[in-house]
Amino acid sequence: MEARALKWWGWGFEDVRLEVASRPVLWAYLRERLKLDPTTVHAVVPLESVSVPPSLIEPADLAELGRAVGEANVSTEDADRILHAVGRGYKDLVRLRAGRIERAPDAVVYPEDEGAVRAVLELARRRRVAVVPFGGGTSVVGGVETPSGAGFAAVLALDLRRMRKLHEIDATSGTATFDAGVRGPVLEEVLNAQRFTFPHVPQSWEFSTLGGWIATRSAGALSNRYGTIEDLVVAVRLVSPTRTLDVRALPRDAHGPGIREIVLGSEGALGVITQATIRVHPMPQVRRFASRVFRSFADGLEALRGMAQGDALPDTTYLSDEEETQFALANAGIAPDGRARGTTGVTQSLLLMGFEGTSTHVAHARRRALPLARGSASLGSGPARRWFEDRLRLPYLRDSLLDHGILVDTVETAALWSRLPAVYDAGRKALQEALWGEGEAGLVLCHTSHVYHDGASLYFTFLARQRAGDEIGQWERVKDRVTRAFVDAGGALSHHHGIGADHAPHLARVLGEDGLVVLRALKRELDPDGIMNPGKLVPGSG
Amino acid sequence: MEARALKWWGWGFEDVRLEVASRPVLWAYLRERLKLDPTTVHAVVPLESVSVPPSLIEPADLAELGRAVGEANVSTEDADRILHAVGRGYKDLVRLRAGRIERAPDAVVYPEDEGAVRAVLELARRRRVAVVPFGGGTSVVGGVETPSGAGFAAVLALDLRRMRKLHEIDATSGTATFDAGVRGPVLEEVLNAQRFTFPHVPQSWEFSTLGGWIATRSAGALSNRYGTIEDLVVAVRLVSPTRTLDVRALPRDAHGPGIREIVLGSEGALGVITQATIRVHPMPQVRRFASRVFRSFADGLEALRGMAQGDALPDTTYLSDEEETQFALANAGIAPDGRARGTTGVTQSLLLMGFEGTSTHVAHARRRALPLARGSASLGSGPARRWFEDRLRLPYLRDSLLDHGILVDTVETAALWSRLPAVYDAGRKALQEALWGEGEAGLVLCHTSHVYHDGASLYFTFLARQRAGDEIGQWERVKDRVTRAFVDAGGALSHHHGIGADHAPHLARVLGEDGLVVLRALKRELDPDGIMNPGKLVPGSG
Repeated sequence: MEARALKWWGWGFEDVRLEVASRPVLWAYLRERLKLDPTTVHAVVPLESVSVPPSLIEPADLAELGRAVGEANVSTEDADRILHAVGRGYKDLVRLRAGRIERAPDAVVYPEDEGAVRAVLELARRRRVAVVPFGGGTSVVGGVETPSGAGFAAVLALDLRRMRKLHEIDATSGTATFDAGVRGPVLEEVLNAQRFTFPHVPQSWEFSTLGGWIATRSAGALSNRYGTIEDLVVAVRLVSPTRTLDVRALPRDAHGPGIREIVLGSEGALGVITQATIRVHPMPQVRRFASRVFRSFADGLEALRGMAQGDALPDTTYLSDEEETQFALANAGIAPDGRARGTTGVTQSLLLMGFEGTSTHVAHARRRALPLARGSASLGSGPARRWFEDRLRLPYLRDSLLDHGILVDTVETAALWSRLPAVYDAGRKALQEALWGEGEAGLVLCHTSHVYHDGASLYFTFLARQRAGDEIGQWERVKDRVTRAFVDAGGALSHHHGIGADHAPHLARVLGEDGLVVLRALKRELDPDGIMNPGKLVPGSG
Repeated sequence: MEARALKWWGWGFEDVRLEVASRPVLWAYLRERLKLDPTTVHAVVPLESVSVPPSLIEPADLAELGRAVGEANVSTEDADRILHAVGRGYKDLVRLRAGRIERAPDAVVYPEDEGAVRAVLELARRRRVAVVPFGGGTSVVGGVETPSGAGFAAVLALDLRRMRKLHEIDATSGTATFDAGVRGPVLEEVLNAQRFTFPHVPQSWEFSTLGGWIATRSAGALSNRYGTIEDLVVAVRLVSPTRTLDVRALPRDAHGPGIREIVLGSEGALGVITQATIRVHPMPQVRRFASRVFRSFADGLEALRGMAQGDALPDTTYLSDEEETQFALANAGIAPDGRARGTTGVTQSLLLMGFEGTSTHVAHARRRALPLARGSASLGSGPARRWFEDRLRLPYLRDSLLDHGILVDTVETAALWSRLPAVYDAGRKALQEALWGEGEAGLVLCHTSHVYHDGASLYFTFLARQRAGDEIGQWERVKDRVTRAFVDAGGALSHHHGIGADHAPHLARVLGEDGLVVLRALKRELDPDGIMNPGKLVPGSG
């Protein structure tokens, strides 16, 4: 993995690009909807011209870190510091591309085992150095951004990428134990060799890590079938500056309040996840797809609800609202049809479905699900298959949109079925009003891709022309407004992106002040000096 | 529910009894295996002769409690105090039957709403009165036993039975919100009226409460299909002496560490669960059963593992080991066959299966599951159906066994499939050696009734002649030995009975000392004066 260079300024591998102009129908559609000036080009500054503040790490500390993790596993190079300064949210990319990195870690350490993690935290505590645990660095909620160094001697990024060892595959139990720094492709390669798969495939899967998935309560495209990360983690170890939480590998227990569930979602603010035991599944024998189009998003949601409550949910579902359907059609090279009207566009809603497993399971699941897609028209398997195959590639499009001066970001929530229409309306209205209120033509797309008995997720993508010179301010106002709208309407603050720095100020609005008090008590116990990922998750912690 | 009197000295309704002598084959089998003297009869002392220590509650406090919860909702009657002194474990029943109640709550309060709960906790904190939250009182791990009053002005039992209000059925989301004191039958009656069911049916279902299920991390007979209680709770409220945790009703969120999962398993030691929103399901259209017999428990476990890992698990499974199969046959009136040899008895293992839901689901689930019961012989639907119908009645048998001077108790654990045989062997050996070491012929039965992708539960029933005059000591030695054996072999301290007072001294052995530190931090934050259910869950807390 490390051999293939990553972009310091954008998404993913250095050698992969996806130009919006290479999809002319989509590009024409966006130009029209966003009233773009097609001549606008926003270049990325050269890496050499990015200035980061000088490293504040003391030479003696650096030497001690070298002894703790190995000389080759410590870096104060600017390039490393820049790669670890921020995550991959819109705000992060805007700052990177402009070369405006106000804060960067003073050093990056790459421990190779848990002992080295302990040694780093021991030094950090003694020397009052802040530590930002860093998995794939793909957070879009400010989960890994460098905190203000105020009150700290220095800030370290603790990158887990060199901790990727397989400890055990327990084929009988269908479990495997890995170091937490392992990324999707390596994990999968190791498991596939024994005909197992780990069915957790978030869109960041190529870059994000097992520990990161656990720390952020991640969800992947197969969650309908196999659950989200909390359903796939059997056991986990967390090393804090003062404690080690070591959850016993059991299928289930009644051991009081869930220590495992305290580690899940801990976002580096309680300690470093070093190891986990996960549920692995047999590799699917077959994979089949189906695509349907409904008259409206509301009709599609109702079909999904019927499937979920009728034990008939496909293993993957991806339902786009009318606007996103139009975007998807444009992306597939199909021009918006003549019925397009105003901001709602075509009145159709695309549902992509995937089924995988044994041929028996797939046949049964299709027989159960498809009749419940009532009132829809079939588009065959193609659109769903293409989406599934293209889904890890799509995030690359964002960099090209940024090249053209487009604000593009995503926000997500979840709600009970009874509240979902209200949360959808509130989120959409908030985004539209906020974008247009900023004086820019906005485009707001939404889909539902995680479906449960009692509700579902909503994932919005929003686009508008950037306000030159005020890109971050523009984004912050939109983000704040939609976040409040979600929560006020009864939705989640986040379904699967997590809290990070961006959502931390809102956390009391979903947990209550007394819920925050509990988080603070956990933080105080596990990280008494407040050195772990300050400013993330726990409001006012940094 | 309250109209029908409960036994103060044994299990369940006063008017329901199940005499072992009414099942002559079973009775003959037990007499032989346990070398019983059939003339032994241990009578229960009359209620009038049970002496409890005088109530220590101050008249002023009592008056204030009356104002807080209503005069009619406070009692210092001996009968009420005795009913709330202990749970329904073996140790509890031995003490009750002998009239040896060393400790009882000084008063019992029956709040009718959350405001009254708050008022009680406020008084309790101010006056340093310990509070034992009391649901159905069916704990078998000392979860509700009256703590030593040392350091407290008095001890209150806070009985939730009068908090059973339905707040809302959200038919769209498939959820319902109830006060936490509601019991299984009332909950079910309310839901059934709208064609919903709550598929959580532990054996205590008639008596135990929604709040109790959540507080103890309970599991029911349909867990294979619908999950255990943590899979069925969407939202929950916990009122502590200083805080209120109010988890938002969402299908899923990424709001950091799980506050919901801190309330789950809190066992009254962090506060009082006052309300919960649960997932409800459509009432099953059909229910079908199948019974198979395997050559060995090991073969049966292997079949269950194949079903669980092959998406083919029946909605209910109940696999008895060879000894329990022999017991089940005797219970059904079938004498042990000629092949019985030594302590292992017949070499057969009975698997009972249940399927429920729509006819489509049931047909498919049967087609998937039954071929995986490889190497087994069919016994038709009868045994499984009879077990399912009889399962709430069977606990009544225990009182009759106690009448005949028999030690009878259950212990349970869970383990990964790879460790399950070792945990089974260790538990069985520990029980047998402990019972026989006590000089009594022991009988050790085991079944697996909760099955997961990565492992399963083990539930042991053990029987022996009581050691007259040392009944509790005999039990304590056996219990300690088997508990250690489970944990040492890699099993859970409890799969679904919880921690209570009985398991609390062992908790560090599964959570680690640092896990306990986290529990203590939670306790300190939510219950800073340590008045909530002292001595339960958190070791050294009372």
